[in-house]
Amino acid sequence: MDGRTNRQAAEPEGTGRHGARLAALQQRMAAAGVDLVVLTPGTSWWYLTGVGLLASRLALFFVPRQGEPAWVVPRLEAERVARSPLATALGLAPERVCTYADGDDPAPAVARAAALATAGLGGPPRVAAMEERVARLFEWHAARGGLPGVAWQAAEPLLAALRARKDPAEVAAIRRAAELVETALGHGSASVQPGYRESQIAREIEKALRELGTRSPFGIHVASGPRSAVPHAETSDRMLQPGDLVWIDVGAEVDGYAADITRTFLLPGGDPTAAARKAEIYRVCYQAQAAARAAARPGVRARDVDAAARQRIAQAGFGPYFTHRTGHGLGLDVHEAPDIAPGDDTVLEPGMVFTVEPGIYLPGIGGVRIEDDLLITDDGAVSLTRYRRWLAPGPEPPEPAGPSASRSAADVPDPGRSVAGGRGAEGR
Amino acid sequence: MDGRTNRQAAEPEGTGRHGARLAALQQRMAAAGVDLVVLTPGTSWWYLTGVGLLASRLALFFVPRQGEPAWVVPRLEAERVARSPLATALGLAPERVCTYADGDDPAPAVARAAALATAGLGGPPRVAAMEERVARLFEWHAARGGLPGVAWQAAEPLLAALRARKDPAEVAAIRRAAELVETALGHGSASVQPGYRESQIAREIEKALRELGTRSPFGIHVASGPRSAVPHAETSDRMLQPGDLVWIDVGAEVDGYAADITRTFLLPGGDPTAAARKAEIYRVCYQAQAAARAAARPGVRARDVDAAARQRIAQAGFGPYFTHRTGHGLGLDVHEAPDIAPGDDTVLEPGMVFTVEPGIYLPGIGGVRIEDDLLITDDGAVSLTRYRRWLAPGPEPPEPAGPSASRSAADVPDPGRSVAGGRGAEGR
Repeated sequence: MDGRTNRQAAEPEGTGRHGARLAALQQRMAAAGVDLVVLTPGTSWWYLTGVGLLASRLALFFVPRQGEPAWVVPRLEAERVARSPLATALGLAPERVCTYADGDDPAPAVARAAALATAGLGGPPRVAAMEERVARLFEWHAARGGLPGVAWQAAEPLLAALRARKDPAEVAAIRRAAELVETALGHGSASVQPGYRESQIAREIEKALRELGTRSPFGIHVASGPRSAVPHAETSDRMLQPGDLVWIDVGAEVDGYAADITRTFLLPGGDPTAAARKAEIYRVCYQAQAAARAAARPGVRARDVDAAARQRIAQAGFGPYFTHRTGHGLGLDVHEAPDIAPGDDTVLEPGMVFTVEPGIYLPGIGGVRIEDDLLITDDGAVSLTRYRRWLAPGPEPPEPAGPSASRSAADVPDPGRSVAGGRGAEGR
Repeated sequence: MDGRTNRQAAEPEGTGRHGARLAALQQRMAAAGVDLVVLTPGTSWWYLTGVGLLASRLALFFVPRQGEPAWVVPRLEAERVARSPLATALGLAPERVCTYADGDDPAPAVARAAALATAGLGGPPRVAAMEERVARLFEWHAARGGLPGVAWQAAEPLLAALRARKDPAEVAAIRRAAELVETALGHGSASVQPGYRESQIAREIEKALRELGTRSPFGIHVASGPRSAVPHAETSDRMLQPGDLVWIDVGAEVDGYAADITRTFLLPGGDPTAAARKAEIYRVCYQAQAAARAAARPGVRARDVDAAARQRIAQAGFGPYFTHRTGHGLGLDVHEAPDIAPGDDTVLEPGMVFTVEPGIYLPGIGGVRIEDDLLITDDGAVSLTRYRRWLAPGPEPPEPAGPSASRSAADVPDPGRSVAGGRGAEGR
């Protein structure tokens, strides 16, 4: 194998889509005074051009504030780039895809692409931007070599604003991915009982995902008992015990777009004192998650959604045991903008999709996390994940009052447990 | 899901291994005058510490020329790092794992870790290094903030020299991965005949890999007919035709280590003129690949192995149709040092593992690539992949004379075709 693919190629859905995305980026660049965005292989490259690219060799995509883009790619990738949905939509001249051979210095190709991309600017470029969380140092050195004297800044704000607002086709892909992962989770949940191993549950879910034609973009994480107190625990061979907290964190992918869900089960039995403690954090986490969903609507800030969950957990005295952000944007990346975290002032807008997943982790005892994927609508939010959230003994606690529509979506029952035959959520 | 795992954790094999790797790196740093290596999540981090880490949040691993390392990690990763094989081997003080919470500025943690790691240097650090092909700009900005005034260089030469020479356990893992991928390839090869689709062949191989408890770290690429002329073609639904060239490029993974193999089949039949052309590039590629294997031994340069294949192809007049390097180092990364390419002067040493995979691609007609994984031994090379290389009508052409032991390993037959029952290469 001579390369590692970033992402499996889906067939383009219509080339106009990519031309429109490029135009929208250029509009934002003009407004921000950025002359050139230089992208490296990754999901933003995919988002704009419609093709993925290998990341092991140097590849750069130069987008000028106005005029046509240009590329630097290894010679063996030239054809894929030249036939990309974006290049097709623009009727791009093939010579704008500048290539170099293995073993050759790519610098001349970089200089040529930079010159081609900036020719229409009416002067030398002064400000250029790269994605600081994607671009690696060798890519930046190469880009800088082709663009002497420019000032560099982060491209993330320009791209995040575009990518965070999903179009209907993107929402449909995430919604479908959510349906698939819920079906698979339903199959796995039948094994969430004492005597089964974490790894067996993960295998059941993996099998179901595969049969549905998808996979989890980040693995399948099942953590039980004291292991569930580690937020990033990986699946082990531990056997489930009565009284265990068991959380399952799994995703699915449709057309490159991810869904991401976590559910926690509280098994009956075990030590009564510990059981009371587990039931307490379960109830608090459940309410905190409901509070975050209720807070989500257009016009509020990402940090406000975080605060809603965080306040509930802090009020109950578990603040120190909620060690991560409440959620993250979801799309081509499993983690993308916005951050549902204290520091993020992003104002929520219709079309944004993100997770809400507060957690409480008591060392040595266990942890609870409940995660949904929310879509901001014109007047509220809906949860694209609808799997039953209360999977503990006893009745569900009341959810907090709030204006959000995300509370009103009918729950998907837990199919592995409450539906005969464990057929999962398909066909609903 | 609140993170993406770089690599599934295997159980540590003995903590001493990681302590020895750290010491070897520090020795090289001292010799090269590098005061500090700053690693970011990736395979070098894994290689040195024995744990993988999520890459979506800032994480830095500070290795001083002398003294103990220090880390910056998000709070929810602290425990995994503190319990890593390296930290355990060193009996590391937990406060050397400096953490920050989601939403907080990590700069104070970076400053603290930098100060801890450099305290034993006997003066402020002057030269620091990061992996330029791994570290992203935000990670570099963060590291630079904690180390004002240092000169930065690339860490790759320091690490490549260590990682390129595999220890016996690493070789055993790659060897086992090679056995698994050959078994799976044998299962798939039964479907390499007219009427089957590329995607069916890939599914057969995928199924076999799964049953063997592994997976291909880079996908399964099957390209047939004119599609085989694209070196990075991805598997499609194309149906195989008589006379097709069909190549299969697939890998397997054991304990994080990769094997990587490509075989090309030439199906009988089809247009006679085109068939002669295909048979010609098949023979030339086969001989070029054998020449590269014969050239591989301690003391020769990586570029010499490339030259051996390249010369044979150029002599036959197909130079312009060999559009990539001859091979790449193989280990924790599917692509790592050395490059078997014109520009790489690395002198081969026992323990190095790399691919040799020349290819010839005739647009509109088809392509051939034959890829093995070579291990340099004390006096030559052995091929860890032993699957039959000649999969075309007619007798195999003679291999070139040469000193390498890689020619002498008994070939694994093509099990899907020549062994009754298509049971593959297992059990040999």
